[in-house]
Amino acid sequence: MPQSSFTLYGVAISGPTYKVALMLTLCGEPFAYRHVDLFKGAHKQPEFLAINRYGQVPALVHGELRLCQSGAILQYLSEVLGKFAGADTLTRQRTREWLFWEADRLSPGINRTRAIARGFLEADPATAKVYREAGEAGLKVLDESLAASNFIAGAMPTIGDIACYGAIVFAEEGGFRLADWPHVKAWAGRMAALPGFKAPLDLLPMNDMR
Amino acid sequence: MPQSSFTLYGVAISGPTYKVALMLTLCGEPFAYRHVDLFKGAHKQPEFLAINRYGQVPALVHGELRLCQSGAILQYLSEVLGKFAGADTLTRQRTREWLFWEADRLSPGINRTRAIARGFLEADPATAKVYREAGEAGLKVLDESLAASNFIAGAMPTIGDIACYGAIVFAEEGGFRLADWPHVKAWAGRMAALPGFKAPLDLLPMNDMR
Repeated sequence: MPQSSFTLYGVAISGPTYKVALMLTLCGEPFAYRHVDLFKGAHKQPEFLAINRYGQVPALVHGELRLCQSGAILQYLSEVLGKFAGADTLTRQRTREWLFWEADRLSPGINRTRAIARGFLEADPATAKVYREAGEAGLKVLDESLAASNFIAGAMPTIGDIACYGAIVFAEEGGFRLADWPHVKAWAGRMAALPGFKAPLDLLPMNDMR
Repeated sequence: MPQSSFTLYGVAISGPTYKVALMLTLCGEPFAYRHVDLFKGAHKQPEFLAINRYGQVPALVHGELRLCQSGAILQYLSEVLGKFAGADTLTRQRTREWLFWEADRLSPGINRTRAIARGFLEADPATAKVYREAGEAGLKVLDESLAASNFIAGAMPTIGDIACYGAIVFAEEGGFRLADWPHVKAWAGRMAALPGFKAPLDLLPMNDMR
Protein backbone atom coordinates (compact mmCIF):
# COMPACT_ATOMS: atom_id res chain seq x y z
CA MET A 1 0.00 0.00 0.00
CA PRO A 2 1.28 3.51 -0.72
CA GLN A 3 2.07 5.60 2.33
CA SER A 4 -0.71 8.16 2.74
CA SER A 5 -0.08 11.69 3.92
CA PHE A 6 -3.63 11.92 5.28
CA THR A 7 -5.02 10.25 8.39
CA LEU A 8 -8.75 10.63 8.98
CA TYR A 9 -10.19 10.14 12.47
CA GLY A 10 -13.90 9.54 12.62
CA VAL A 11 -16.91 7.26 12.60
CA ALA A 12 -18.22 5.54 9.47
CA ILE A 13 -21.84 6.37 10.25
CA SER A 14 -21.09 10.09 10.85
CA GLY A 15 -22.13 12.48 8.09
CA PRO A 16 -19.31 14.96 8.83
CA THR A 17 -16.72 12.15 8.79
CA TYR A 18 -18.09 10.89 5.49
CA LYS A 19 -17.89 14.36 3.93
CA VAL A 20 -14.13 14.39 4.40
CA ALA A 21 -13.69 10.78 3.31
CA LEU A 22 -15.80 11.40 0.20
CA MET A 23 -13.75 14.47 -0.70
CA LEU A 24 -10.52 12.49 -0.39
CA THR A 25 -11.77 9.58 -2.46
CA LEU A 26 -13.25 11.84 -5.16
CA CYS A 27 -9.83 13.52 -5.33
CA GLY A 28 -8.14 10.13 -5.65
CA GLU A 29 -6.20 10.62 -2.42
CA PRO A 30 -5.49 7.55 -0.30
CA PHE A 31 -5.80 8.01 3.46
CA ALA A 32 -5.30 6.08 6.66
CA TYR A 33 -8.37 5.83 8.87
CA ARG A 34 -8.77 5.64 12.64
CA HIS A 35 -12.13 4.72 14.11
CA VAL A 36 -13.06 6.89 17.10
CA ASP A 37 -15.32 4.93 19.43
CA LEU A 38 -17.86 7.55 20.51
CA PHE A 39 -19.77 5.01 22.60
CA LYS A 40 -16.66 4.49 24.72
CA GLY A 41 -16.07 8.27 24.90
CA ALA A 42 -12.84 8.11 22.90
CA HIS A 43 -13.51 11.62 21.52
CA LYS A 44 -13.26 13.12 25.01
CA GLN A 45 -9.94 11.47 25.87
CA PRO A 46 -6.70 13.52 25.94
CA GLU A 47 -5.24 11.58 23.00
CA PHE A 48 -8.07 12.67 20.70
CA LEU A 49 -8.46 16.16 22.19
CA ALA A 50 -4.82 16.78 21.23
CA ILE A 51 -5.92 16.29 17.62
CA ASN A 52 -9.33 17.99 17.82
CA ARG A 53 -9.78 20.41 20.72
CA TYR A 54 -13.57 20.36 20.25
CA GLY A 55 -13.80 16.63 20.97
CA GLN A 56 -15.92 16.03 17.86
CA VAL A 57 -15.45 13.85 14.79
CA PRO A 58 -13.96 14.13 12.25
CA ALA A 59 -10.36 15.23 12.48
CA LEU A 60 -7.80 15.03 9.71
CA VAL A 61 -4.05 14.95 10.15
CA HIS A 62 -2.08 16.13 7.13
CA GLY A 63 1.64 16.21 7.77
CA GLU A 64 2.14 18.55 10.72
CA LEU A 65 -1.37 19.99 10.49
CA ARG A 66 -4.22 18.81 12.68
CA LEU A 67 -7.50 19.85 11.10
CA CYS A 68 -11.08 19.77 12.33
CA GLN A 69 -14.61 21.00 11.50
CA SER A 70 -15.68 19.25 8.30
CA GLY A 71 -16.56 22.48 6.48
CA ALA A 72 -13.13 23.94 7.25
CA ILE A 73 -11.44 20.69 6.23
CA LEU A 74 -13.29 20.69 2.90
CA GLN A 75 -12.13 24.25 2.25
CA TYR A 76 -8.55 23.29 3.12
CA LEU A 77 -8.56 20.20 0.90
CA SER A 78 -10.12 22.08 -2.03
CA GLU A 79 -7.19 24.48 -1.87
CA VAL A 80 -4.29 22.08 -1.31
CA LEU A 81 -5.62 19.52 -3.80
CA GLY A 82 -6.90 22.16 -6.22
CA LYS A 83 -10.24 20.40 -6.73
CA PHE A 84 -13.95 21.10 -6.11
CA ALA A 85 -13.33 24.71 -4.99
CA GLY A 86 -15.33 26.23 -7.85
CA ALA A 87 -13.84 27.50 -11.08
CA ASP A 88 -14.28 31.26 -10.61
CA THR A 89 -14.78 33.87 -7.88
CA LEU A 90 -18.56 33.77 -8.01
CA THR A 91 -18.76 29.97 -7.94
CA ARG A 92 -16.24 29.80 -5.09
CA GLN A 93 -18.31 32.29 -3.11
CA ARG A 94 -21.58 30.44 -3.82
CA THR A 95 -19.85 27.26 -2.69
CA ARG A 96 -18.90 28.90 0.61
CA GLU A 97 -22.44 30.11 1.08
CA TRP A 98 -23.76 26.58 0.67
CA LEU A 99 -21.17 25.26 3.14
CA PHE A 100 -22.34 27.67 5.83
CA TRP A 101 -26.00 27.22 4.92
CA GLU A 102 -25.57 23.44 5.16
CA ALA A 103 -24.01 23.68 8.63
CA ASP A 104 -26.84 25.94 9.81
CA ARG A 105 -29.94 24.74 7.97
CA LEU A 106 -29.46 21.21 6.62
CA SER A 107 -27.29 18.99 8.82
CA PRO A 108 -28.70 19.95 12.25
CA GLY A 109 -32.29 18.97 11.45
CA ILE A 110 -31.47 15.86 9.44
CA ASN A 111 -28.68 14.57 11.68
CA ARG A 112 -30.61 15.01 14.93
CA THR A 113 -33.76 13.45 13.49
CA ARG A 114 -31.70 10.48 12.33
CA ALA A 115 -29.90 10.26 15.70
CA ILE A 116 -33.28 10.09 17.45
CA ALA A 117 -34.51 7.42 15.01
CA ARG A 118 -31.38 5.34 15.61
CA GLY A 119 -31.53 5.75 19.40
CA PHE A 120 -28.35 7.81 19.70
CA LEU A 121 -30.15 10.94 20.92
CA GLU A 122 -33.08 11.42 23.29
CA ALA A 123 -35.43 14.30 22.67
CA ASP A 124 -38.80 15.50 23.89
CA PRO A 125 -41.48 15.04 21.16
CA ALA A 126 -41.80 18.83 20.72
CA THR A 127 -38.06 19.13 20.17
CA ALA A 128 -38.01 16.15 17.81
CA LYS A 129 -40.72 17.91 15.79
CA VAL A 130 -38.62 21.09 15.58
CA TYR A 131 -35.69 19.03 14.28
CA ARG A 132 -37.82 17.22 11.70
CA GLU A 133 -39.34 20.46 10.44
CA ALA A 134 -35.89 22.02 10.21
CA GLY A 135 -34.70 19.05 8.14
CA GLU A 136 -37.73 19.31 5.86
CA ALA A 137 -37.23 23.06 5.43
CA GLY A 138 -33.61 22.44 4.47
CA LEU A 139 -34.59 19.76 1.97
CA LYS A 140 -37.13 22.15 0.43
CA VAL A 141 -34.49 24.86 -0.10
CA LEU A 142 -32.08 22.33 -1.56
CA ASP A 143 -34.72 20.87 -3.85
CA GLU A 144 -35.72 24.27 -5.23
CA SER A 145 -32.11 25.14 -5.87
CA LEU A 146 -31.34 21.84 -7.58
CA ALA A 147 -34.30 22.34 -9.89
CA ALA A 148 -32.24 25.08 -11.54
CA SER A 149 -28.76 23.53 -11.84
CA ASN A 150 -27.16 20.09 -11.92
CA PHE A 151 -25.00 20.80 -8.88
CA ILE A 152 -25.41 23.18 -5.96
CA ALA A 153 -23.23 26.03 -7.14
CA GLY A 154 -23.68 25.49 -10.87
CA ALA A 155 -22.92 22.97 -13.59
CA MET A 156 -20.00 21.28 -11.83
CA PRO A 157 -19.72 19.64 -8.40
CA THR A 158 -17.96 21.51 -5.58
CA ILE A 159 -17.28 21.02 -1.87
CA GLY A 160 -20.76 22.54 -1.36
CA ASP A 161 -22.23 19.42 -2.96
CA ILE A 162 -19.96 17.14 -0.95
CA ALA A 163 -21.03 18.85 2.31
CA CYS A 164 -24.74 18.60 1.51
CA TYR A 165 -24.41 15.02 0.27
CA GLY A 166 -22.91 14.02 3.63
CA ALA A 167 -26.20 14.99 5.24
CA ILE A 168 -28.52 13.72 2.49
CA VAL A 169 -26.94 10.25 2.25
CA PHE A 170 -28.22 9.46 5.77
CA ALA A 171 -31.55 11.33 5.56
CA GLU A 172 -33.71 8.28 4.90
CA GLU A 173 -32.49 6.72 8.17
CA GLY A 174 -34.24 9.69 9.80
CA GLY A 175 -37.45 8.97 7.94
CA PHE A 176 -37.05 11.68 5.31
CA ARG A 177 -38.19 10.24 1.95
CA LEU A 178 -35.98 11.50 -0.84
CA ALA A 179 -38.76 10.69 -3.31
CA ASP A 180 -40.56 13.71 -1.82
CA TRP A 181 -37.74 15.95 -3.07
CA PRO A 182 -37.20 14.74 -6.65
CA HIS A 183 -34.50 17.26 -7.57
CA VAL A 184 -32.51 16.25 -4.50
CA LYS A 185 -32.97 12.60 -5.40
CA ALA A 186 -31.78 13.17 -8.98
CA TRP A 187 -28.77 15.16 -7.75
CA ALA A 188 -27.90 12.40 -5.26
CA GLY A 189 -27.81 10.07 -8.26
CA ARG A 190 -25.43 12.44 -10.05
CA MET A 191 -23.20 12.55 -6.98
CA ALA A 192 -23.13 8.75 -6.76
CA ALA A 193 -22.07 8.61 -10.43
CA LEU A 194 -18.95 10.76 -9.92
CA PRO A 195 -15.64 8.98 -10.65
CA GLY A 196 -14.23 7.51 -7.44
CA PHE A 197 -17.51 7.79 -5.52
CA LYS A 198 -18.09 5.35 -2.68
CA ALA A 199 -21.04 5.04 -0.29
CA PRO A 200 -20.29 5.53 3.43
CA LEU A 201 -19.96 1.91 4.48
CA ASP A 202 -18.03 1.01 1.32
CA LEU A 203 -15.56 3.76 2.12
CA LEU A 204 -15.17 3.60 5.90
CA PRO A 205 -15.23 0.56 8.18
CA MET A 206 -16.17 0.55 11.84
CA ASN A 207 -12.54 -0.09 12.74
CA ASP A 208 -9.08 1.17 11.80
CA MET A 209 -7.89 1.06 8.20
CA ARG A 210 -4.35 1.71 7.07
CA MET B 1 -20.22 61.47 2.11
CA PRO B 2 -17.88 59.23 0.09
CA GLN B 3 -19.60 56.79 -2.24
CA SER B 4 -19.42 53.34 -0.69
CA SER B 5 -18.88 50.22 -2.75
CA PHE B 6 -20.63 48.09 -0.11
CA THR B 7 -24.34 47.94 0.63
CA LEU B 8 -25.37 45.87 3.64
CA TYR B 9 -28.94 44.57 3.93
CA GLY B 10 -29.99 43.47 7.39
CA VAL B 11 -31.46 44.14 10.78
CA ALA B 12 -29.64 46.04 13.51
CA ILE B 13 -30.61 43.57 16.22
CA SER B 14 -29.46 40.54 14.18
CA GLY B 15 -26.19 38.95 15.24
CA PRO B 16 -25.30 37.79 11.71
CA THR B 17 -25.98 41.29 10.30
CA TYR B 18 -23.83 42.81 13.02
CA LYS B 19 -20.93 40.44 12.24
CA VAL B 20 -20.68 41.86 8.72
CA ALA B 21 -21.15 45.46 9.84
CA LEU B 22 -18.50 45.03 12.54
CA MET B 23 -16.04 43.57 10.03
CA LEU B 24 -16.58 46.53 7.68
CA THR B 25 -16.17 49.13 10.41
CA LEU B 26 -13.08 47.42 11.89
CA CYS B 27 -11.62 47.49 8.37
CA GLY B 28 -12.44 51.18 8.05
CA GLU B 29 -14.78 50.55 5.11
CA PRO B 30 -17.83 52.78 4.76
CA PHE B 31 -21.03 51.09 3.66
CA ALA B 32 -24.60 51.92 2.79
CA TYR B 33 -27.23 50.14 4.86
CA ARG B 34 -30.73 48.93 4.04
CA HIS B 35 -33.02 47.84 6.83
CA VAL B 36 -34.94 44.65 5.99
CA ASP B 37 -38.25 44.62 7.86
CA LEU B 38 -38.56 40.99 8.93
CA PHE B 39 -41.83 41.68 10.75
CA LYS B 40 -43.37 42.75 7.46
CA GLY B 41 -41.84 39.75 5.68
CA ALA B 42 -39.55 41.88 3.50
CA HIS B 43 -36.97 39.05 3.45
CA LYS B 44 -39.41 36.78 1.60
CA GLN B 45 -40.26 39.31 -1.13
CA PRO B 46 -38.89 38.90 -4.68
CA GLU B 47 -36.82 42.08 -4.39
CA PHE B 48 -34.82 40.70 -1.47
CA LEU B 49 -34.75 37.11 -2.72
CA ALA B 50 -32.99 38.40 -5.83
CA ILE B 51 -30.17 39.51 -3.52
CA ASN B 52 -30.23 36.57 -1.09
CA ARG B 53 -31.88 33.40 -2.41
CA TYR B 54 -32.16 31.99 1.14
CA GLY B 55 -34.41 34.84 2.30
CA GLN B 56 -32.28 35.44 5.39
CA VAL B 57 -30.39 38.47 6.66
CA PRO B 58 -27.75 39.67 6.11
CA ALA B 59 -26.84 40.17 2.46
CA LEU B 60 -24.00 42.28 1.15
CA VAL B 61 -23.76 43.80 -2.29
CA HIS B 62 -20.22 44.59 -3.43
CA GLY B 63 -20.11 45.88 -6.98
CA GLU B 64 -21.65 43.17 -9.13
CA LEU B 65 -21.47 40.53 -6.40
CA ARG B 66 -24.43 39.63 -4.21
CA LEU B 67 -23.16 37.88 -1.10
CA CYS B 68 -24.92 36.06 1.71
CA GLN B 69 -24.29 33.79 4.73
CA SER B 70 -22.38 35.85 7.29
CA GLY B 71 -19.54 33.31 7.64
CA ALA B 72 -19.02 33.25 3.87
CA ILE B 73 -19.18 37.06 3.74
CA LEU B 74 -16.55 37.34 6.48
CA GLN B 75 -14.26 35.02 4.52
CA TYR B 76 -14.79 37.05 1.35
CA LEU B 77 -14.12 40.37 3.07
CA SER B 78 -11.01 39.06 4.84
CA GLU B 79 -9.61 38.21 1.40
CA VAL B 80 -10.60 41.28 -0.60
CA LEU B 81 -9.70 43.69 2.21
CA GLY B 82 -6.66 41.67 3.33
CA LYS B 83 -7.57 41.91 7.02
CA PHE B 84 -8.48 39.57 9.87
CA ALA B 85 -7.85 36.41 7.82
CA GLY B 86 -5.02 35.19 10.06
CA ALA B 87 -1.33 35.76 9.40
CA ASP B 88 -0.25 32.24 8.44
CA THR B 89 -1.68 28.95 7.15
CA LEU B 90 -2.27 27.47 10.59
CA THR B 91 -3.97 30.60 11.95
CA ARG B 92 -6.12 30.90 8.83
CA GLN B 93 -7.20 27.30 9.24
CA ARG B 94 -7.93 27.70 12.97
CA THR B 95 -9.97 30.78 12.06
CA ARG B 96 -12.05 28.73 9.60
CA GLU B 97 -12.57 26.06 12.20
CA TRP B 98 -13.94 28.63 14.65
CA LEU B 99 -16.23 30.06 11.95
CA PHE B 100 -17.82 26.66 11.34
CA TRP B 101 -17.86 25.80 15.05
CA GLU B 102 -19.57 29.11 15.78
CA ALA B 103 -22.28 28.47 13.18
CA ASP B 104 -22.90 24.98 14.60
CA ARG B 105 -22.31 25.29 18.34
CA LEU B 106 -22.50 28.91 19.48
CA SER B 107 -25.01 31.01 17.53
CA PRO B 108 -27.90 28.53 17.37
CA GLY B 109 -28.24 28.10 21.13
CA ILE B 110 -27.62 31.72 22.03
CA ASN B 111 -29.66 33.28 19.24
CA ARG B 112 -32.71 31.06 19.75
CA THR B 113 -32.64 31.52 23.52
CA ARG B 114 -32.50 35.27 23.00
CA ALA B 115 -35.27 35.14 20.39
CA ILE B 116 -37.50 33.32 22.87
CA ALA B 117 -36.66 35.86 25.61
CA ARG B 118 -37.51 38.73 23.28
CA GLY B 119 -40.74 37.13 22.05
CA PHE B 120 -39.58 36.61 18.46
CA LEU B 121 -39.67 32.80 18.68
CA GLU B 122 -42.10 30.42 20.35
CA ALA B 123 -40.75 27.19 21.75
CA ASP B 124 -41.92 24.38 23.97
CA PRO B 125 -40.16 24.52 27.40
CA ALA B 126 -38.24 21.30 26.63
CA THR B 127 -36.95 22.78 23.37
CA ALA B 128 -36.10 26.08 25.04
CA LYS B 129 -34.06 24.09 27.57
CA VAL B 130 -32.15 22.33 24.75
CA TYR B 131 -31.33 25.72 23.20
CA ARG B 132 -30.19 27.19 26.52
CA GLU B 133 -27.98 24.21 27.27
CA ALA B 134 -26.49 24.39 23.78
CA GLY B 135 -25.68 28.06 24.33
CA GLU B 136 -24.08 27.30 27.69
CA ALA B 137 -22.04 24.46 26.20
CA GLY B 138 -20.80 26.81 23.48
CA LEU B 139 -19.88 29.48 26.03
CA LYS B 140 -17.95 26.88 28.03
CA VAL B 141 -15.87 25.84 25.00
CA LEU B 142 -15.21 29.47 24.12
CA ASP B 143 -14.25 30.34 27.70
CA GLU B 144 -11.78 27.47 27.96
CA SER B 145 -10.19 28.45 24.67
CA LEU B 146 -9.92 32.12 25.59
CA ALA B 147 -8.19 31.19 28.83
CA ALA B 148 -5.21 30.25 26.66
CA SER B 149 -4.97 33.11 24.16
CA ASN B 150 -6.08 36.73 23.84
CA PHE B 151 -8.09 36.06 20.72
CA ILE B 152 -9.76 32.95 19.38
CA ALA B 153 -7.13 31.81 16.92
CA GLY B 154 -4.12 33.28 18.72
CA ALA B 155 -2.62 36.60 19.71
CA MET B 156 -4.39 38.71 17.08
CA PRO B 157 -8.09 39.11 16.23
CA THR B 158 -9.49 37.36 13.15
CA ILE B 159 -12.86 36.89 11.49
CA GLY B 160 -13.30 33.98 13.92
CA ASP B 161 -13.46 36.52 16.74
CA ILE B 162 -15.81 38.75 14.78
CA ALA B 163 -18.17 35.83 14.14
CA CYS B 164 -18.22 34.73 17.78
CA TYR B 165 -18.56 38.30 19.02
CA GLY B 166 -21.70 38.72 16.91
CA ALA B 167 -23.33 36.01 19.00
CA ILE B 168 -21.82 36.99 22.36
CA VAL B 169 -22.77 40.67 22.14
CA PHE B 170 -26.46 39.69 22.38
CA ALA B 171 -26.08 36.77 24.82
CA GLU B 172 -27.16 38.67 27.93
CA GLU B 173 -30.50 39.46 26.26
CA GLY B 174 -31.02 35.70 26.35
CA GLY B 175 -30.24 35.55 30.05
CA PHE B 176 -26.68 34.25 29.68
CA ARG B 177 -24.53 36.09 32.26
CA LEU B 178 -21.11 36.81 30.80
CA ALA B 179 -19.74 37.11 34.35
CA ASP B 180 -20.12 33.32 34.52
CA TRP B 181 -17.56 33.02 31.69
CA PRO B 182 -14.78 35.40 32.77
CA HIS B 183 -12.44 34.68 29.86
CA VAL B 184 -15.24 35.39 27.40
CA LYS B 185 -16.05 38.59 29.26
CA ALA B 186 -12.42 39.75 29.20
CA TRP B 187 -12.15 38.92 25.48
CA ALA B 188 -15.36 40.83 24.77
CA GLY B 189 -13.66 43.81 26.41
CA ARG B 190 -10.65 43.37 24.12
CA MET B 191 -12.96 43.22 21.10
CA ALA B 192 -14.73 46.42 22.17
CA ALA B 193 -11.34 48.13 22.49
CA LEU B 194 -10.32 47.46 18.86
CA PRO B 195 -9.85 50.60 16.72
CA GLY B 196 -13.06 51.43 14.89
CA PHE B 197 -15.24 49.20 17.08
CA LYS B 198 -18.89 50.10 17.45
CA ALA B 199 -21.67 48.37 19.39
CA PRO B 200 -24.66 47.10 17.33
CA LEU B 201 -27.04 49.99 17.84
CA ASP B 202 -24.25 52.56 17.46
CA LEU B 203 -23.38 51.00 14.12
CA LEU B 204 -26.74 50.12 12.59
CA PRO B 205 -30.05 51.94 12.85
CA MET B 206 -33.50 50.39 12.49
CA ASN B 207 -33.89 52.18 9.17
CA ASP B 208 -31.92 52.85 6.01
CA MET B 209 -28.56 54.60 6.17
CA ARG B 210 -26.65 55.87 3.18
